[in-house]
Amino acid sequence: MTHTRVRLSPDDRREQLLDLGIELLATRSLDELSIDLLAEEAGISRGLLYHYFRNKQEFHRAVVRRATDEMLAVTTPDPSLDALTRLTTGLAAYIDYVEANFEPFTSLVRGAASGDRFLREIYEDARSALTGRIFESVGELGLSDSPATRLLVNGWAAMVEEAVITWVQERQVPKEELLRLLAAALPAVLTATAPGQPAAS
Amino acid sequence: MTHTRVRLSPDDRREQLLDLGIELLATRSLDELSIDLLAEEAGISRGLLYHYFRNKQEFHRAVVRRATDEMLAVTTPDPSLDALTRLTTGLAAYIDYVEANFEPFTSLVRGAASGDRFLREIYEDARSALTGRIFESVGELGLSDSPATRLLVNGWAAMVEEAVITWVQERQVPKEELLRLLAAALPAVLTATAPGQPAAS
Repeated sequence: MTHTRVRLSPDDRREQLLDLGIELLATRSLDELSIDLLAEEAGISRGLLYHYFRNKQEFHRAVVRRATDEMLAVTTPDPSLDALTRLTTGLAAYIDYVEANFEPFTSLVRGAASGDRFLREIYEDARSALTGRIFESVGELGLSDSPATRLLVNGWAAMVEEAVITWVQERQVPKEELLRLLAAALPAVLTATAPGQPAAS
Repeated sequence: MTHTRVRLSPDDRREQLLDLGIELLATRSLDELSIDLLAEEAGISRGLLYHYFRNKQEFHRAVVRRATDEMLAVTTPDPSLDALTRLTTGLAAYIDYVEANFEPFTSLVRGAASGDRFLREIYEDARSALTGRIFESVGELGLSDSPATRLLVNGWAAMVEEAVITWVQERQVPKEELLRLLAAALPAVLTATAPGQPAAS
């Protein structure tokens, strides 16, 4: 990637710095992503950087927010598809995204869990956006939206996150199998636990 | 709780300090649990404390390890029960444990995610012990132990953790319903995704 020296608007320059931040995060943790490193890689002064980001924390949050927005954009399913196909294609795009952006993604998960309130909010917004797509589909999937459904869908989202992160590290099964397992898990859980179902045995 | 002033062996004194650590963690985060606070609450000098724990980090790890051992002990199912009953009683004990020890438990989860290698190991050991009990039962449940099964059981463990933490905070459903949903989810996921099953619809 080349960094061309054209005069950019402040907004465009900020976007370019965030892109560079995401790029740098591919090979290091959020903790290692300093303003100094960004300045060096961007070829501009620390002073100028502080014009765009008040401090390292604000820079980190902006980078993680941008990475998350990208993830939501690439996983948006085609609304003309049926609910089950939307689930599968959205999930396939999510797996591809986590695989291709492993460091930024795990930085978000770790940052959210470590107690940074803003990273936690970004994380929860992203997860709500992903699971919100499921809730929009529950009627079409023949299920009712209830506290139990919400609990299970959020639990399934945690299962997906855990499974995909482990899969990128260990590759226990082919990618198509991972997708098949996780896509089948959601209807299975919701159907088996729906009121009136006999207990699983 | 009273702190009696009898002369204890070094091992017993260390255990007592760890118990106090867990007690203190009930109302504050791991970050807020300092050696100073422990010394004050235990009524002994900082100097003496450093005889038992080399630094705050070692103290934190020992507290979290002890809380985790307790959790594994109270959730150990009676081996004379059948596999499905072991799953349900173990899960019920786990929900009760997380409910009663919410701060120590979430400290472990946060600490593991935030990148402390030792907390991560304690967390992974605990989760392996919990899911290991499931793997011991898969044959009895009529399922085969395969990479796909392991991926799903670990994913289900993440679902349980997420659902129970959210449930303690939000109480969306009665506790019996939470238990029913999570216990039913595991066989549902494993059965629906087993090789040779038709795709869920």
